[in-house]
Amino acid sequence: MDNNISCQMKVETGDAGYVLEDVPHLTDYISDLPTYPNPLRSNPAYSVVKQYFVDADDTVPQKVVVHKDGPRGIHFRRAGPRQRVYFAPDEVHAAIVTCGGLCPGLNTVIREIVCALYHMYGVTRVLGIDGGYRGFYSKNTITLTPKVVNDIHKRGGTIIGTSRGGHDKPKIVDSIQDRGINQVYIIGGDGTQKGAAVIYQEVRRRGLKAVVAGIPKTIDNDIPVIDKSFGFDTAVEEAQRAINAAHVEAESAENGIGLVKLMGRYSGFIAMYATLASRDVDLCLIPESPFYLEGEGGLLEYVEKRLKDNGHMVIVVAEGAGQELLAAENLKTSTAQDASGNKLLQDVGLWISDKIKGHFAKIPSMPITLKYIDPTYMIRAVPSNASDNVYCTLLAQSCVHGVMAGYTGFTSGLVNGRQTYIPFNRITEKQNNVVITDRMWARLLSSTNQPSFLRPKEVIAVQKLERETQLLDGDSSKTNDI
Amino acid sequence: MDNNISCQMKVETGDAGYVLEDVPHLTDYISDLPTYPNPLRSNPAYSVVKQYFVDADDTVPQKVVVHKDGPRGIHFRRAGPRQRVYFAPDEVHAAIVTCGGLCPGLNTVIREIVCALYHMYGVTRVLGIDGGYRGFYSKNTITLTPKVVNDIHKRGGTIIGTSRGGHDKPKIVDSIQDRGINQVYIIGGDGTQKGAAVIYQEVRRRGLKAVVAGIPKTIDNDIPVIDKSFGFDTAVEEAQRAINAAHVEAESAENGIGLVKLMGRYSGFIAMYATLASRDVDLCLIPESPFYLEGEGGLLEYVEKRLKDNGHMVIVVAEGAGQELLAAENLKTSTAQDASGNKLLQDVGLWISDKIKGHFAKIPSMPITLKYIDPTYMIRAVPSNASDNVYCTLLAQSCVHGVMAGYTGFTSGLVNGRQTYIPFNRITEKQNNVVITDRMWARLLSSTNQPSFLRPKEVIAVQKLERETQLLDGDSSKTNDI
Amino acid sequence: MDNNISCQMKVETGDAGYVLEDVPHLTDYISDLPTYPNPLRSNPAYSVVKQYFVDADDTVPQKVVVHKDGPRGIHFRRAGPRQRVYFAPDEVHAAIVTCGGLCPGLNTVIREIVCALYHMYGVTRVLGIDGGYRGFYSKNTITLTPKVVNDIHKRGGTIIGTSRGGHDKPKIVDSIQDRGINQVYIIGGDGTQKGAAVIYQEVRRRGLKAVVAGIPKTIDNDIPVIDKSFGFDTAVEEAQRAINAAHVEAESAENGIGLVKLMGRYSGFIAMYATLASRDVDLCLIPESPFYLEGEGGLLEYVEKRLKDNGHMVIVVAEGAGQELLAAENLKTSTAQDASGNKLLQDVGLWISDKIKGHFAKIPSMPITLKYIDPTYMIRAVPSNASDNVYCTLLAQSCVHGVMAGYTGFTSGLVNGRQTYIPFNRITEKQNNVVITDRMWARLLSSTNQPSFLRPKEVIAVQKLERETQLLDGDSSKTNDI
Amino acid sequence: MDNNISCQMKVETGDAGYVLEDVPHLTDYISDLPTYPNPLRSNPAYSVVKQYFVDADDTVPQKVVVHKDGPRGIHFRRAGPRQRVYFAPDEVHAAIVTCGGLCPGLNTVIREIVCALYHMYGVTRVLGIDGGYRGFYSKNTITLTPKVVNDIHKRGGTIIGTSRGGHDKPKIVDSIQDRGINQVYIIGGDGTQKGAAVIYQEVRRRGLKAVVAGIPKTIDNDIPVIDKSFGFDTAVEEAQRAINAAHVEAESAENGIGLVKLMGRYSGFIAMYATLASRDVDLCLIPESPFYLEGEGGLLEYVEKRLKDNGHMVIVVAEGAGQELLAAENLKTSTAQDASGNKLLQDVGLWISDKIKGHFAKIPSMPITLKYIDPTYMIRAVPSNASDNVYCTLLAQSCVHGVMAGYTGFTSGLVNGRQTYIPFNRITEKQNNVVITDRMWARLLSSTNQPSFLRPKEVIAVQKLERETQLLDGDSSKTNDI
Repeated sequence: MDNNISCQMKVETGDAGYVLEDVPHLTDYISDLPTYPNPLRSNPAYSVVKQYFVDADDTVPQKVVVHKDGPRGIHFRRAGPRQRVYFAPDEVHAAIVTCGGLCPGLNTVIREIVCALYHMYGVTRVLGIDGGYRGFYSKNTITLTPKVVNDIHKRGGTIIGTSRGGHDKPKIVDSIQDRGINQVYIIGGDGTQKGAAVIYQEVRRRGLKAVVAGIPKTIDNDIPVIDKSFGFDTAVEEAQRAINAAHVEAESAENGIGLVKLMGRYSGFIAMYATLASRDVDLCLIPESPFYLEGEGGLLEYVEKRLKDNGHMVIVVAEGAGQELLAAENLKTSTAQDASGNKLLQDVGLWISDKIKGHFAKIPSMPITLKYIDPTYMIRAVPSNASDNVYCTLLAQSCVHGVMAGYTGFTSGLVNGRQTYIPFNRITEKQNNVVITDRMWARLLSSTNQPSFLRPKEVIAVQKLERETQLLDGDSSKTNDI
Repeated sequence: MDNNISCQMKVETGDAGYVLEDVPHLTDYISDLPTYPNPLRSNPAYSVVKQYFVDADDTVPQKVVVHKDGPRGIHFRRAGPRQRVYFAPDEVHAAIVTCGGLCPGLNTVIREIVCALYHMYGVTRVLGIDGGYRGFYSKNTITLTPKVVNDIHKRGGTIIGTSRGGHDKPKIVDSIQDRGINQVYIIGGDGTQKGAAVIYQEVRRRGLKAVVAGIPKTIDNDIPVIDKSFGFDTAVEEAQRAINAAHVEAESAENGIGLVKLMGRYSGFIAMYATLASRDVDLCLIPESPFYLEGEGGLLEYVEKRLKDNGHMVIVVAEGAGQELLAAENLKTSTAQDASGNKLLQDVGLWISDKIKGHFAKIPSMPITLKYIDPTYMIRAVPSNASDNVYCTLLAQSCVHGVMAGYTGFTSGLVNGRQTYIPFNRITEKQNNVVITDRMWARLLSSTNQPSFLRPKEVIAVQKLERETQLLDGDSSKTNDI
Repeated sequence: MDNNISCQMKVETGDAGYVLEDVPHLTDYISDLPTYPNPLRSNPAYSVVKQYFVDADDTVPQKVVVHKDGPRGIHFRRAGPRQRVYFAPDEVHAAIVTCGGLCPGLNTVIREIVCALYHMYGVTRVLGIDGGYRGFYSKNTITLTPKVVNDIHKRGGTIIGTSRGGHDKPKIVDSIQDRGINQVYIIGGDGTQKGAAVIYQEVRRRGLKAVVAGIPKTIDNDIPVIDKSFGFDTAVEEAQRAINAAHVEAESAENGIGLVKLMGRYSGFIAMYATLASRDVDLCLIPESPFYLEGEGGLLEYVEKRLKDNGHMVIVVAEGAGQELLAAENLKTSTAQDASGNKLLQDVGLWISDKIKGHFAKIPSMPITLKYIDPTYMIRAVPSNASDNVYCTLLAQSCVHGVMAGYTGFTSGLVNGRQTYIPFNRITEKQNNVVITDRMWARLLSSTNQPSFLRPKEVIAVQKLERETQLLDGDSSKTNDI
Repeated sequence: MDNNISCQMKVETGDAGYVLEDVPHLTDYISDLPTYPNPLRSNPAYSVVKQYFVDADDTVPQKVVVHKDGPRGIHFRRAGPRQRVYFAPDEVHAAIVTCGGLCPGLNTVIREIVCALYHMYGVTRVLGIDGGYRGFYSKNTITLTPKVVNDIHKRGGTIIGTSRGGHDKPKIVDSIQDRGINQVYIIGGDGTQKGAAVIYQEVRRRGLKAVVAGIPKTIDNDIPVIDKSFGFDTAVEEAQRAINAAHVEAESAENGIGLVKLMGRYSGFIAMYATLASRDVDLCLIPESPFYLEGEGGLLEYVEKRLKDNGHMVIVVAEGAGQELLAAENLKTSTAQDASGNKLLQDVGLWISDKIKGHFAKIPSMPITLKYIDPTYMIRAVPSNASDNVYCTLLAQSCVHGVMAGYTGFTSGLVNGRQTYIPFNRITEKQNNVVITDRMWARLLSSTNQPSFLRPKEVIAVQKLERETQLLDGDSSKTNDI
């Protein structure tokens, strides 16, 4: 384990193959920090509950499907309030920043961090960084109080604004140091969490008593380890509207095709779940499952067959699907990136739309009607539903508990239904993908009746890859293999 | 373990405190049953996936928060398709029955059982029992095909009808035997699953090659062991509407009180989650948390204080809350039951409404406006949302896999995010309740600022009870202690 | 015409039976009032439009279905901005009050009055009276600015609060005089508009330069002359939810009955339109159409027949339906009133529910399942939909235009699709009712197939009454006879 | 009046400038047709109502704002059931066809035509033409019964399919003649109604006893004479979602711009009403109001100013806005048409998006974030709301009444709140447009604060044009000048 990782993760082992991948703590690099009794002890809502505080030894396994005699595997530290905290309430100066694209629940997370700090820990100095990372050094801050955030969970978006990029490490840590901020809550995706890891390391290098904690945000659900990212449920729910509309358009026309592009740059979770929830979809394309257009077993053959059988069809395509095909056609754009370092994708929806139209233009006896729907910004902007509201509350409170307890360099996340603290590197080192040899994807194939687009040789390759992945990871597929 | 339980559960132990509570199998009482390769092997959607079939040794722990050296605890058999099945497709004659009150997702479960049997296993004889248990012997059956069930998941209710009671064991098993039914899927709550256990035992006693499987249904989420019951998410979402309306009514009047009664006969989960999701609630009453009206620390004092501070308030009350207070006032009704054996409750919403009105009638300077909303039947009747649709699909498919594999006397359920097969007795022997010394309830108290209604002596009693419960159960609180 | 009416309405006649029922004007009792050019002339949004100002002669007929040679009938003054206004912007001190029950759109009306005064007329002193009429003399006022009201149209309820009663004429007019209020906008129903008429007369008696204008509010749509009251569309839309739920509950049970009580104290418009929009209703009961329970052609016979034919049914009942039957059973409550002078009704939903249950309790072969839904407070509290938002905007702006132009003692209302100013007495002298001999009710009977509950003798009486009403009114049924 | 028009419209005049533009009748070209008493006389729902049948002299004025001594103007025949009908029930063979793009309410209109024919007139032979006009000669028909159409009003789209073009007059009338169809219900927009007029004339030329009636369909509300087209309310409601999303996206980014393209090829009604209903829009562009990008008073200047003042903005653009600007840039595409003869428009949303991005790319100090939402197909495909459901019911029933009464060559439409029969040529001779000198557009300008984009010279031209239009039309602006 290189030094970079070692300051991000503390590994501990136990009997029967038990491994704990623990998160850093302020005391790892600052000695003699004073501690205080947790103020929750005197909070009437909590005081009656003796078992309220988390046992220092509580951990949560990453892998939950087990064999009688199998190794116990990797575990993470359980989140929750500790008996003693490392900040006095009036010492805390907290900052919250949201980065990257919109996602349902951002406002709820902001609200609940503010409320947890105020109501649970008596902290009164909380500020919002305006407009993402660059707000640390280029803008004024926004004062956040329970009153300011009271109703924001009923609105979409983020009241403190967001942006891509802007990750200038020295300027950000200077700002943290100069303003005397000692708790930094960073809500954002993959790139943002990588930035958070770097900020944490610099804060540690400078020896500041300042905690850096992340809350993973990705509407695509592509963050590894955790069960599900916040806003995902809401996004899938909202995606149903677009699929329903596509279905209606398709059914009302001769050879009607309804085509819906959904989010999913590298991972097809939204497309897959929306397809499974809807049951009206005939073809679902995701980045993880390569496909080809022409020839036997290809997409166009299937579309033609489906129209002949049913008279109409609905196609769902994740934005990152088929990018290798687009790139092969148009080499120049394939290396562009946006400010967050995300590869700029070409619009696969328009591309497939053109390909399908071109194909049927050659078959005069089959005039088609294709309607293309891109609901992306309508999905991102809705407020979180009830289920995500509760989930965001737990995430935010867990994060605050960990921060107050002096843990740092961690991200809050739900693992096997329990809140945990996870080292940054576990979250950022790879992506969560749909495993196309898992049962969830098989369910989808069975529900849509679409071809697997795998040629015999590829089947073997995929199976081999899959076996190796499992050997390395233990439990590659998380909740998607239920 | 008495004989009744022993035929319901097969216990196996392993190293480090590992316990497997396994479910029965047809081969437990019928020998020399032929087996067949799983037809999924030749299904194009599944054939490419070698790892598709569940390993015979896969189990899922009931308890997921662990200590480094703690015992491994109780496990359940993992659900999923097996390499070999105990029914030839054309041999199967399946029946589905829904019992008890409505719950979002019933139609989705019916749809997915039918589709799984047809599309995965090539089964073509599936029928619906009309109107609950009594339909087995008093009504004609309903033919179910993929075409018939194609769109039903977009509608609330159950297309095969439901009723309470009607559990006449001999008549039901006669009907199963006479009609040649060999797979029985029973969707219903606590009482229904108890009935299913009895039917299973009678089927076993008669030595029939007929599987009896349950899918637990309870909008109240009061079934133990499993993470969450289907329809619960949808119900909480829909409950928000009523709470929002109550909030608007309360805010628009002087001393306005919005009072919402939600489902929850014995368990306050819907009330608790709806309160946590909404953030507009000032008082949440559930069956698990006793309260009193008069005097210091009582409900009326809090209402009065809240109105003086805020000018309005929102109260959510689960239907089973405070029943002991109502019973004390009116002894005669406390023993009545409905046809399913549920205690008939008095309307606690109207009762509290009267008490509050009566209290303020004595304070002429504080005229109040109280609006009472009972959204029960509007919540029960909505179609399941996207998240519940996917969940119902997994439940139904898991159940069908288990049945085809010859398991019987089991209920399908999600445990720590994984589908499992659980012995009936584990599901019916007790209820899942809100543990008022867990963190979720503490979160709620903190969010509403309501009093705990516990007098000092009671605090000690609750803590004591809680410690004992934990010693017995290992992990009393499941996902509600996240 | 008595003196009371003569100060409320100025009647003018023309050729071919043309009658104009004009509204009062400040100059009727104050002479030598200065006028000013309408500030809209210099507003960039309006300045380019020469035809913008309403012609002083524009009027709108009450009756729109005409014959070639028929009399032209009653007309009302057309609403809209006038070339000259009777208030200088900095002279205006406006007050807005909302009275009675909630109705979708209240906040939109408040918002648009405030914005019209600010943005169109440069008025900056607008205040809200807190909590209805009694707020004039018992509470502090609420400052209203475009910023304060910016988002309120997205919320239900009324931000300035409401209450019933509190109409103490001298105290209210004293308050208007003492605070120097010279524009009073009164939003409320029948009783409230009667109060407004009295306030107008007292203001006139005292010779104050203060305009009193009403905006009629009634979720029941029971105000005469006008096409439709604001919030009605939203209410009917929301009522669909309850009817859908009732339908699902009914369909899922044997002999299932879904019973929905909707608003409609004296007029069954919501029940009628919701029934026509839904198409799932088998019986709709409204105050205007008497019914009876027992015997041939009675309600219970129809319910029994419907259940035998269809297996389930949905009943919609307006709250004011059948009150004479309830009163006959229970004389003592029939004279009670609420603070607004509305007769206190007994709950007809529970009453019918009891009667139906009682009837079938005597028929053991027909066990029924009846689910009763009362969505009243959930309907009242929703925000107005897009259509009502636009409608509320027009109402509010029309009212402000009239007030600035010096008209007083009027209510704003849509007549035959055009905004008009209507004398108070026309609005309050009678109610708008469903005319059960009109085509809309016939459409409903045809859609539900319910009996007319009229005995032969009654048919003749109804027809006679109807003919007489038509002779008196000219056009009794307004938009309900389309 | 040329011969073409004279067979489409019968003009009758009366006193005081009364004009009736009457619709054709079968007896205009077929003599000695037998008549029958209206079957509604013996329908229990209608029989009690003596005044039910429409008086032969009932007419409805096109112009409702009147002056005391002004001319009475143009009138249309009132719709509704007549005492005698020209078809015996078992003689009727009806056909329904839907043409052009989807619109909320199509299924409701189909349902209600079928139900009115069956339940009111005892007609049992009703068929649907599959997939628009071309279905008359290239496809099998679809049998329509009350059972088939029972639930279709809860779904979007059209169950009988639709298409553009396919208007081959001889083949269609041959099909009508050969199949013995004697009632043709044609639901479609401008081009479709023109086709209907041609079909009517050919049917008349051949002397067939076959009625041709239209129901105008246009989600854009661009059909003249009538108050509002069906589905319009639903479309505006649904458009709010997209505007809300755009607002959230805009607010959450620095210099965030949310851009929404709405329907409106030639008329900006949806954009205008959605803007007025939402109140979050800063700029609304419609086809009727020309604009320019560059320079003083131009769009880009306004966008820049608005971002500097507010930090974000929302733009709504109707699809037909600014087409002359796009055409000027790219001459080649401006003459293309779709199969219905609609001019193929370039995507103004993408074009404006590019222009705005290009503008700010030159201002490094103002990086913008622009999100473009095109909700067109999601709006078109929703089911009609309650208000549109009732409206569609009235339209369909009115049409059936007129057809049964022997009227032909007419379209059903609501005029001043009353159902009427309108000659085809009145509906197709011009379009309903937003009159930008009317008050509704002024309201919008006032609400958004956007510039009028009119240069002084143009202001005068517009005013002149407007005065002339009014002289010609009498009441140019219908319900949009309320």
